[in-house]
Amino acid sequence: MKIAVLAGDGIGREVTAEAVKVLRAAVGRTRPMELVEAPIGQAGVDLAGDPLPPATLQAARDADAILFGSVGIPGDEAIPYGMRPGASLLRLRKDLDLFANFRPAFLFPELVAASTLKREVVEGLDLMILRELTGDLYFGEPRGIAPNAAGAMEGFNTMRYSEPEIERIAHVAFRAARGRRSKVCSVDKANVLETMQLWRTVVTRVGREYPDVELRHLFVDAAVMLLMKEPKSFDVMVMGNVFGDILSDAAAMLTGSIGMLPSASLGAGRKGLYEPVHGSAPDIAGRDIANPLAAILSAAMMLRHSFDDEATAARIHGAVGRVLREGLRTADIHGPGTTQVGTRTMGDAVVEAL
Amino acid sequence: MKIAVLAGDGIGREVTAEAVKVLRAAVGRTRPMELVEAPIGQAGVDLAGDPLPPATLQAARDADAILFGSVGIPGDEAIPYGMRPGASLLRLRKDLDLFANFRPAFLFPELVAASTLKREVVEGLDLMILRELTGDLYFGEPRGIAPNAAGAMEGFNTMRYSEPEIERIAHVAFRAARGRRSKVCSVDKANVLETMQLWRTVVTRVGREYPDVELRHLFVDAAVMLLMKEPKSFDVMVMGNVFGDILSDAAAMLTGSIGMLPSASLGAGRKGLYEPVHGSAPDIAGRDIANPLAAILSAAMMLRHSFDDEATAARIHGAVGRVLREGLRTADIHGPGTTQVGTRTMGDAVVEAL
Ligand SMILES: CC(C)[C@H](C(=O)O)[C@@H](O)C(=O)O
Ligand SMILES: CC(C)[C@H](C(=O)O)[C@@H](O)C(=O)O
Repeated sequence: MKIAVLAGDGIGREVTAEAVKVLRAAVGRTRPMELVEAPIGQAGVDLAGDPLPPATLQAARDADAILFGSVGIPGDEAIPYGMRPGASLLRLRKDLDLFANFRPAFLFPELVAASTLKREVVEGLDLMILRELTGDLYFGEPRGIAPNAAGAMEGFNTMRYSEPEIERIAHVAFRAARGRRSKVCSVDKANVLETMQLWRTVVTRVGREYPDVELRHLFVDAAVMLLMKEPKSFDVMVMGNVFGDILSDAAAMLTGSIGMLPSASLGAGRKGLYEPVHGSAPDIAGRDIANPLAAILSAAMMLRHSFDDEATAARIHGAVGRVLREGLRTADIHGPGTTQVGTRTMGDAVVEAL
Repeated sequence: MKIAVLAGDGIGREVTAEAVKVLRAAVGRTRPMELVEAPIGQAGVDLAGDPLPPATLQAARDADAILFGSVGIPGDEAIPYGMRPGASLLRLRKDLDLFANFRPAFLFPELVAASTLKREVVEGLDLMILRELTGDLYFGEPRGIAPNAAGAMEGFNTMRYSEPEIERIAHVAFRAARGRRSKVCSVDKANVLETMQLWRTVVTRVGREYPDVELRHLFVDAAVMLLMKEPKSFDVMVMGNVFGDILSDAAAMLTGSIGMLPSASLGAGRKGLYEPVHGSAPDIAGRDIANPLAAILSAAMMLRHSFDDEATAARIHGAVGRVLREGLRTADIHGPGTTQVGTRTMGDAVVEAL
């Protein structure tokens, strides 16, 4: 097991340290595990003058899996793309062709009250957002800012999806549904965008190969509404990069505790990048108050997907459930009748519970 | 007052009839009012072989304001653009240059329970989504489906915004905020898209002309999360066409009763198009069960914006509040202890309350 550990910026460093601690405790004795730490994001700039230093990219390429923290600093968006800490993650996803981003939304029973939605709407939620991650407006050319025919500055980006790109993510969606409740909802905007018409056509065609999986299509605006109204009516939701960016965060917020949610970005093989859904949160960085559970659960996803070790993944999940039942909470999920603890203490408690 | 009445398809016809009834009752006696009815959507196809018949377009151009119902039939997205009922509305917005789409999200106190969000999160909600309506991926060229260099079919659309387009919607946002709580949140994806970098730059620059208005920027994924977490922290939210399509429906769903929400699409002058946020709902059409209140409140927005008649707009609002207090409800908002009524009875009750 060769794992590249790219902790990155802000709380990414703190939460990744806890995830590594838990990983070591969970598998360290049973299986050889090589951890290669490398800087990325602002940390890459500070140490090697590049948010994605060549040595980091190489370490990621060489690894079986990547444990990722978070990247980004305040004002990030104003820095040119190649030097922007936040963009290093996009470059990494693209370089490794990690086109399938799994973002589960689920709630531990102890945390139902954290949601801004009513208990009955979200209790028992178990939803999988599958976001295409290497196409769409994120990478489409041409792109830029230039004067238009009238002499005014104009910004432009290109939404672009080819049939093979849609086919491969569709297959991932149907296969994932087979391991769950056998329902796929494909999200598009086929009533307005040609790209999304092609999306709908191709997903429909691929769906015929999975007659046992129920397929429905929703326009993105209707999808976000139903997600808020009846989130439990969904199983797997598949969509393009931009709509996925928005709807996966909406789905995460249904749970009320984004500090709890892991994600996996996979390619054609078993290799994957695993990261908490939350960002670098510079405002709370370095204070031992960030919630490490999303990073810890990301490590569990890594064991499941990249190392086919469902048993250890389930043990980690169980350990997280146990510390929550014991009443331990970081500040973001703290409430009456529970015990507030710091990042490190939470990580230690999970190790203990293992 | 010359008003084009484009009722369109499905429940659009039923709810628009009630809105006209209320309009007549509210202003009919005090001011001359000319109503010009014209078919649009599938109704246009049926009557004139075109979802946007030339005579309808002319009626819309000639009018001071347009009262719009809804367009669209099941399977709409598979029909070629020029003959697609649902696209007639896009063509109308573009032709009349109605670039500023106001979508308020508010709750009548009687309907707080309809929301899937907790009472304390949404009670007193009063939010204005301002969506740019004539640019972005909706209208950007080039667009289409064609074979790519590798010989695979590829769909492509162009996100495009010029400085003048961003400037004018930004001015509308800041002016709207002045009449409210003086806060603007601009929503973009400046960390990934050049178009959105230009958006942020221009909105920031325009904002300097409104030092009395607080301006903040959020990425669209963060915005949808905060919208679900603390919707009352927002006043005016301004964004492009695509993000606005998604976030305005998310904001509408915060209220739990999309059958209550009106909208206005304005251009440079006073002329506007007013429509309920809900669609044509073919499944419940023709059964006298649709909620006409969104259409009735759209007529109130029309009086306010196109005819500068705040007093009558407020009277209509008050009348809607009154029938809700009396316990009358259409099926979509019906609950224990209230009286279920049909579309026409609800319209009559509002007239009565006036
Ligand atoms: C940081 C940003 C570029 C990124 C994205 O938009 O993909 C993030 O929002 C995410 O969802 O992983
Ligand atoms: C019907 C559709 C084309 C339209 C849009 O996407 O603009 C609708 O969703 C809306 O928000 O008015």
